[in-house]
Amino acid sequence: MSTFGQLFRVTTYGESHCKSVGCIVEGVPPGMSLTEEDIQPQLTRRRPGQSKLSTPRNEKDKVEIQSGTEFGKTLGTPIGMIVKNEDQRPHDYGEMDEFPRPSHADFTYSEKYGIKASSGGGRSSARETIGRVAAGAIAEKVLQQISKVEIVAFVSQIGAIKMNRDPFNPKFQNLLNTITRDQVDSMGPIRCPDVTVAEDMVKEIEKYRGQKDSIGGVVTCVVRNLPTGLGEPCFDKLEAMLAHAMLSVPASKGFEIGSGFAGVELPGSQLNDPFVFDPEVNRLRTKTNNSGGIQGGISNGENIYFSVPFKSAATISQEQATARYNGTEGVLAAKGRHDPSVTPRAIPIVEAMTALVLVDALLIQKSRESLKGIVH
Amino acid sequence: MSTFGQLFRVTTYGESHCKSVGCIVEGVPPGMSLTEEDIQPQLTRRRPGQSKLSTPRNEKDKVEIQSGTEFGKTLGTPIGMIVKNEDQRPHDYGEMDEFPRPSHADFTYSEKYGIKASSGGGRSSARETIGRVAAGAIAEKVLQQISKVEIVAFVSQIGAIKMNRDPFNPKFQNLLNTITRDQVDSMGPIRCPDVTVAEDMVKEIEKYRGQKDSIGGVVTCVVRNLPTGLGEPCFDKLEAMLAHAMLSVPASKGFEIGSGFAGVELPGSQLNDPFVFDPEVNRLRTKTNNSGGIQGGISNGENIYFSVPFKSAATISQEQATARYNGTEGVLAAKGRHDPSVTPRAIPIVEAMTALVLVDALLIQKSRESLKGIVH
Amino acid sequence: MSTFGQLFRVTTYGESHCKSVGCIVEGVPPGMSLTEEDIQPQLTRRRPGQSKLSTPRNEKDKVEIQSGTEFGKTLGTPIGMIVKNEDQRPHDYGEMDEFPRPSHADFTYSEKYGIKASSGGGRSSARETIGRVAAGAIAEKVLQQISKVEIVAFVSQIGAIKMNRDPFNPKFQNLLNTITRDQVDSMGPIRCPDVTVAEDMVKEIEKYRGQKDSIGGVVTCVVRNLPTGLGEPCFDKLEAMLAHAMLSVPASKGFEIGSGFAGVELPGSQLNDPFVFDPEVNRLRTKTNNSGGIQGGISNGENIYFSVPFKSAATISQEQATARYNGTEGVLAAKGRHDPSVTPRAIPIVEAMTALVLVDALLIQKSRESLKGIVH
Amino acid sequence: MSTFGQLFRVTTYGESHCKSVGCIVEGVPPGMSLTEEDIQPQLTRRRPGQSKLSTPRNEKDKVEIQSGTEFGKTLGTPIGMIVKNEDQRPHDYGEMDEFPRPSHADFTYSEKYGIKASSGGGRSSARETIGRVAAGAIAEKVLQQISKVEIVAFVSQIGAIKMNRDPFNPKFQNLLNTITRDQVDSMGPIRCPDVTVAEDMVKEIEKYRGQKDSIGGVVTCVVRNLPTGLGEPCFDKLEAMLAHAMLSVPASKGFEIGSGFAGVELPGSQLNDPFVFDPEVNRLRTKTNNSGGIQGGISNGENIYFSVPFKSAATISQEQATARYNGTEGVLAAKGRHDPSVTPRAIPIVEAMTALVLVDALLIQKSRESLKGIVH
Repeated sequence: MSTFGQLFRVTTYGESHCKSVGCIVEGVPPGMSLTEEDIQPQLTRRRPGQSKLSTPRNEKDKVEIQSGTEFGKTLGTPIGMIVKNEDQRPHDYGEMDEFPRPSHADFTYSEKYGIKASSGGGRSSARETIGRVAAGAIAEKVLQQISKVEIVAFVSQIGAIKMNRDPFNPKFQNLLNTITRDQVDSMGPIRCPDVTVAEDMVKEIEKYRGQKDSIGGVVTCVVRNLPTGLGEPCFDKLEAMLAHAMLSVPASKGFEIGSGFAGVELPGSQLNDPFVFDPEVNRLRTKTNNSGGIQGGISNGENIYFSVPFKSAATISQEQATARYNGTEGVLAAKGRHDPSVTPRAIPIVEAMTALVLVDALLIQKSRESLKGIVH
Repeated sequence: MSTFGQLFRVTTYGESHCKSVGCIVEGVPPGMSLTEEDIQPQLTRRRPGQSKLSTPRNEKDKVEIQSGTEFGKTLGTPIGMIVKNEDQRPHDYGEMDEFPRPSHADFTYSEKYGIKASSGGGRSSARETIGRVAAGAIAEKVLQQISKVEIVAFVSQIGAIKMNRDPFNPKFQNLLNTITRDQVDSMGPIRCPDVTVAEDMVKEIEKYRGQKDSIGGVVTCVVRNLPTGLGEPCFDKLEAMLAHAMLSVPASKGFEIGSGFAGVELPGSQLNDPFVFDPEVNRLRTKTNNSGGIQGGISNGENIYFSVPFKSAATISQEQATARYNGTEGVLAAKGRHDPSVTPRAIPIVEAMTALVLVDALLIQKSRESLKGIVH
Repeated sequence: MSTFGQLFRVTTYGESHCKSVGCIVEGVPPGMSLTEEDIQPQLTRRRPGQSKLSTPRNEKDKVEIQSGTEFGKTLGTPIGMIVKNEDQRPHDYGEMDEFPRPSHADFTYSEKYGIKASSGGGRSSARETIGRVAAGAIAEKVLQQISKVEIVAFVSQIGAIKMNRDPFNPKFQNLLNTITRDQVDSMGPIRCPDVTVAEDMVKEIEKYRGQKDSIGGVVTCVVRNLPTGLGEPCFDKLEAMLAHAMLSVPASKGFEIGSGFAGVELPGSQLNDPFVFDPEVNRLRTKTNNSGGIQGGISNGENIYFSVPFKSAATISQEQATARYNGTEGVLAAKGRHDPSVTPRAIPIVEAMTALVLVDALLIQKSRESLKGIVH
Repeated sequence: MSTFGQLFRVTTYGESHCKSVGCIVEGVPPGMSLTEEDIQPQLTRRRPGQSKLSTPRNEKDKVEIQSGTEFGKTLGTPIGMIVKNEDQRPHDYGEMDEFPRPSHADFTYSEKYGIKASSGGGRSSARETIGRVAAGAIAEKVLQQISKVEIVAFVSQIGAIKMNRDPFNPKFQNLLNTITRDQVDSMGPIRCPDVTVAEDMVKEIEKYRGQKDSIGGVVTCVVRNLPTGLGEPCFDKLEAMLAHAMLSVPASKGFEIGSGFAGVELPGSQLNDPFVFDPEVNRLRTKTNNSGGIQGGISNGENIYFSVPFKSAATISQEQATARYNGTEGVLAAKGRHDPSVTPRAIPIVEAMTALVLVDALLIQKSRESLKGIVH
């Protein structure tokens, strides 16, 4: 369904060529200052057409709060938000309409619903993510106010060009400790914090653009200052909710947290994170952070960090030999100009989905904590 | 929480040293033949002590159906199931109790709940998974009856020893087409279908056992014969539900589906799965399956395949320098014998969680399909 | 929360003086014809200012579909709908703002959220129900197409003036068999199908209007042509979901189904509904319908009928001695003209909530039925 | 489904003749003392065979905690509980099996599931409520510890014999202020606190027992000391959740809160509850309590009180002319002795369901309150 979260909950609507896209956000604490200006920046970061790295269509994506605030303060009631679609006409893509685009959602939507929107797989459109980003911006504001939680995502790989993201490398761990969203944006639309690598990534993208092709990438994300105790032990482990959230982002193909896939090669004696008392926070912390900030499904107060691979965009202008809906073979070449790499634009979406997972876990744990010392 | 699923739903209870562990399964179709014999095999595969590869404790794990069946047929009402714990006494681990075990859930449970079960992080115990496996066995039976769905998981990596699981390698894809659970079990408790690699894996595990250490691994899973149209477009994409399920399995650190992390290096022109008409099923299929059986969050009728990395077991008998709960430094060496590799035992758990995700998605889609041609 | 339903789900937003109110409806079957014209009639019935019987404010309440349809057909994706608020300015009610209105939600909202919307208890505003009515109109269309389900609500009591609604009276049961929405509306805004009683009800309302007072009433609702088998046995019995829905309507104070409160005086020998074979539907039916169409939480194919009492409107222009927020005593008289009886306007809301409950139960049961003969 | 609640959640299983009935309770705060002795008293109150007023079958109904506690303290993990069924054999009721019992769930279960348990409508058995009562006992303990919440239900009507429960009568309101569970039980199994009326009620029940018939009744329930601010504004109003809970109890036919059905005859000027400052609690309270402790869906700190009608038991030994499953007409007389009035036994079930609703609302509101003064 189009609803995510328990105590902090977002429901989204909208596809490519309808009147508007938007969302309803429930569970926003009352009395918090909130205007469109808190939400627009992440929507603008999500917007295509920011540079030659991404698609030149210029969508304005201006969010309008419909409800739930008054005089710039939240009321505790649902926040309705809409973003008008500039292009609201159902499209006629001509001959292209005869083809389900390879590795796109056209075919599966047709199988599932038995009806085809003019824009193909309607909800698989990137525009669906607008509601998520808007809701995530509110979630982030709540997290920041409660415990100065910081969420920073960045591009760590484009095609074969990758920056160091070895979890056992102290330099990478140090980057996770310090990287800011400003630093990420200072690199331009590529959003990779490693200058040298960033330049190569841009070249890699340009190469594929020249070939009317597309290329994938990896987004890495770090969460700092999260309290201990968040996440539920069994099915709703904190990493399980994050994985759910990340694999719900269009074009994502995986998730790894902490030591991830690489860590399976290390024995327990090296992989385990030993404890040490930290007088600064007056509790135990871990010397290393191979766990990625979560143990047994529950946050341990260290940085949470994870990576998400995004496949190359399915829609390319290069010719592809593929069958039509009617079964006949043909050649498809997508009209128009297409984004050769969606990975950099995934950054605010990854941040938003992370915030939505964390704020919900935090609100649930707040309830539990409020009973400490009362129930016995 | 301890509940998973919407129309087919499991709720589990239990930890290491309580009276029993078990679950309640809702949404099982009525009139299906079901006895303990349908459930026990997967529980037995999950059981420790099957060989020298895993921990020698011999738990019997005999499931008893409490409700929801009569004369060997399901009634449509909830299936209650319990498995008695052999060892029901709260434990005194002596000096060990002073330490939160590194990379175990002891510390985070203590932070979350402010109380410590004698077995440390209670629900993070492997025994919690018994309820999941029992429920999964029922889910599998439903899936098999509705569309002969086959779910087969196997060990594809132990430590540095890995079998080929390159998604672009036709031999691997062929293995996915044909591998059976019998073949996996025929390799003995290592559960790797590649004979040569399996032997090396056994040696790898033995090496770490000799060092009182542990080692991680990767489980790969394939699903065959799943109908098209399963999964919801937005937050509950089929791969998102699978990722949620997999990251909820203790010790898992990631998830990748189809082309996964490796696929980000391939351009769209190579990664896209072109369509071709298949007269045998009288619909389009894809020539390649880099998508891993899901496009836009919805199953496309091809094999679903994914991999899940499991970290090395946190509890090792080797000495570890680490802090006590009270902050003082000390040396911890876990008493008793411990499983050097939990990965092979994760096989039935991965299969169970997969089945739970799929049967729920199937039941939801069945409702939608039932209206085709009726609503217009 | 502001979400209702499982497979067919509505989420609403909005309060009195924000930009718009609206909803997102998920689970609408694809390929169904749907335009604003399917939705507007019930919204118009809900609208105040239809006659001297209700408040003279003229809100236009024009619904705009935002998403989920194309060329007048549903896509299977969420239907976003908005209705603009004519009066979007936060209000200054002057001295009245110092008082929590007696029996209104001002005080409890203030206790719950610690913030006061200019319109008092924001979501307790009648405008919140617009989203419900819009969603209910879609639910009704689905129900009609699947099994010609008819839902008709009417006013059966205003103040002390009541029409016969004795469940054991054959005339009342006959009315339930035949009454149509057109008949209800033909009586004018009072919406009571009994001509004589309707006239007395109008007088009753006018009497209280003259006294700047308000008066309560009862809405009775009947559902015809519902299939057997809907509803879940335990917590989500069909009558439990209906009661939940009805008590969620502002100002409602109760619910009774079938024999209700009166039936407790009848012994089982008289209250039980004996079975009889009906060749027309080729299955058992009941001779009487004291159960109200539901037995053991599951629909039995007979008419479902229930009644809901609505208290007199809390906001009256008559002077009331009551305390201010600050604790001092004072006299409050609400400014403006107020609706002396909200009961007639509750009709489309009761119908909408009924439809939402039933369509969800139907979709869930459709999934179960689709497995009949397949699983064994 | 068989799951109820969000943060405090119970899932039940079991029917009449299976091995056991029971439940899993999630969300119980950690560190609370809890043993079977906290739970057994309400189970014993629910048990049939307590006197000649109810059925002579003597079920022992001894609860066994399976998990979630250690050394008599809760761990924060799910509490598994089971109660063994004494009589575990599927029954052969002989000729009776050919009939769906009138107004019982036999027919609707058969329609819904297409399979018939030997005990007829399996989950509609009164034994299903055991899990609810066990869970409710835990919920009550939590409520008592957090804010000394008291929940007392009593029989206010049997057949035509009713005690005064006029909401506008100060004597009734005073009774609500003071009545205790001990007082209710001191009247013997009839559980009506009015001595004179209680005697008549016993006679009424005996009359119908003599006629091999059954008779209905009304349960009234009061909640004291509940904090303000509980309940959600829109669909999950506190009274909506209570109504949902009450109509989910077998044989209940309605619900009214506060002024209920009688209140529709009173104008707002008389029905409204004016505010007055109460220095003892240092906040506003209401002079009257016609609202029944809830305004706008949110608790206002006054007593919550409501009534629930229960129909006469469907199973009677008197002969009933009714059709068989196969459509032929016949005469059914239930074998064995049957409870002529289930109403007194509903008391602990009503209390349990009330506690489950309130504890969930309380835990959700605790989360919200914990952010007061932090988020701005």
